[in-house]
Amino acid sequence: MGGRVLIALGGNAMTAPDGSASPADQHRAIGEAMTHVASLIGAGHEVVLTHGNGPQVGNILLKNQLTAHVVPPVPLDWCVAQTQGTLATLMMNALERATAPQGVRVAAVVTRTLVDAADPAFADPVKPIGQYFPEAEARRFESQGQTWRRFPRGWRRVVASPDPVEILDAPAAIALMEAGYTVVAAGGGGVPLVRGADGTLRGVEAVVDKDLAAAALARAVGATDLVIATDVPNALIGYGTPGARPIEAVTVRELRELRDAGHFASGSMGPKVEAALRFAGDGGRRAVITSLEHIGEALSGNIGTRVSRGVER
Amino acid sequence: MGGRVLIALGGNAMTAPDGSASPADQHRAIGEAMTHVASLIGAGHEVVLTHGNGPQVGNILLKNQLTAHVVPPVPLDWCVAQTQGTLATLMMNALERATAPQGVRVAAVVTRTLVDAADPAFADPVKPIGQYFPEAEARRFESQGQTWRRFPRGWRRVVASPDPVEILDAPAAIALMEAGYTVVAAGGGGVPLVRGADGTLRGVEAVVDKDLAAAALARAVGATDLVIATDVPNALIGYGTPGARPIEAVTVRELRELRDAGHFASGSMGPKVEAALRFAGDGGRRAVITSLEHIGEALSGNIGTRVSRGVER
Repeated sequence: MGGRVLIALGGNAMTAPDGSASPADQHRAIGEAMTHVASLIGAGHEVVLTHGNGPQVGNILLKNQLTAHVVPPVPLDWCVAQTQGTLATLMMNALERATAPQGVRVAAVVTRTLVDAADPAFADPVKPIGQYFPEAEARRFESQGQTWRRFPRGWRRVVASPDPVEILDAPAAIALMEAGYTVVAAGGGGVPLVRGADGTLRGVEAVVDKDLAAAALARAVGATDLVIATDVPNALIGYGTPGARPIEAVTVRELRELRDAGHFASGSMGPKVEAALRFAGDGGRRAVITSLEHIGEALSGNIGTRVSRGVER
Repeated sequence: MGGRVLIALGGNAMTAPDGSASPADQHRAIGEAMTHVASLIGAGHEVVLTHGNGPQVGNILLKNQLTAHVVPPVPLDWCVAQTQGTLATLMMNALERATAPQGVRVAAVVTRTLVDAADPAFADPVKPIGQYFPEAEARRFESQGQTWRRFPRGWRRVVASPDPVEILDAPAAIALMEAGYTVVAAGGGGVPLVRGADGTLRGVEAVVDKDLAAAALARAVGATDLVIATDVPNALIGYGTPGARPIEAVTVRELRELRDAGHFASGSMGPKVEAALRFAGDGGRRAVITSLEHIGEALSGNIGTRVSRGVER
């Protein structure tokens, strides 16, 4: 038994329940998350890990913005790269601790994700990122070339979230997996790059959705299963309505119909459903959307929203 | 011909000639450095790369210090992890560009370095890091637990620089090398960790010297040669005196005597000489200290300070 399982850890695996992301918050949350990952490894699965980084990038961006008059700010793609280093270090340490005494060989690759410079997301940035600011501050940042939008709670920067075209460093992740490593890769969706006309790669101010990157990575590394860990046990039909009910086993076709009917338009479930559809629709055996504390049993078959091409056996 | 060569890139491969480290400065410097690395690869050597990060960590620390009232600051070991992500991304992109059109497979591992919690460096932090501050600011940071010292140009934070005991992620680097990758590892000396009494790893506020980490990594990965790239073509006997002269071929025994006579006490040459001595004294074929623009020919035999156990053939 045991497949090759890609686990995508969301913000709640990286931050305190209130979303705050002090170093101590991150330590605690990742320590907890890795105990669940360890139980999947203990059950005989080969695990590949990826993770979000929203609150962490938010903190780094804020530091950049507040100190731009003194220290050269770094672009958004660099912020993603920065969080890959810190979060991978925390995850490796915590996973070694959670699997002690027998331990596990774990390694993290700095991962770049190719996106298309012609992706429509660049013309219409909609992904909110970082803290809320008063309008005056937002206007000042806009004058420096950023895009800000008014939300109910205040002004917030919005950035492009282009589709991942290729996880450029997936082959390195595969090489490590074949050498027996539990691999951390594509953190924060990967560092977004575009390829110029001359073939060279350059960073772009964008963030790739970590669930869509997880689906691309899962396919690239030949994962059998994609587990998307979030803060709810299931995706819901009729989210926010009195008749809301959890989705359990579902086929790709059924889930596509639900998506097209607008059931996942709001909140963060949209990209998770899309990632599950891409993975299971493109040859992956099964995608599971469930809560972090259930990932250890996510592959037992009766937990979470389970997406597969055919009817669940 | 063709060995396994570990190249340690210093600050001048990562920053502008004046030491400034804006994103554009880093792009330019790394682009230039990678053309030299590409020529070594072109000559048939298997290359492993490591790099310093002093100015980059300085910038991140400054952002942390200036925004600590608003955003939770991250500890020093996290700053090192952050620079591993950004600098590895820049190096990978630039090396692919410098080796086009045939290209090279390049990968970067997030690297942790084990240090000893009982290392005397923790009781006597001497490594200056980050920007100079006025005394009042320095005193305020001291009240928060940091150590600051007065230097001729102002007050500066000093941190522990413990000896690298083990490059914990060297096995992952080896796995990638064996799969054909040019590997970037142990950036900034690696993320410093200590092992607790219960066996678990935790980060410590320290920085590991990148040349000493390079020597440890070079031995761990079985490098034949260690090339330490700096801003001068040779280490000097009598540095700063009228009779200063470059060191060319030298045995480990001769270089040890020069070190013990105090020739490398000042400046940054001390750790480079120590790293060369450790590598060549512990079974490495040859360590070369030379300037960045010479690393492409560093292994031709007639360039830089060449350290080996016996007399150069």
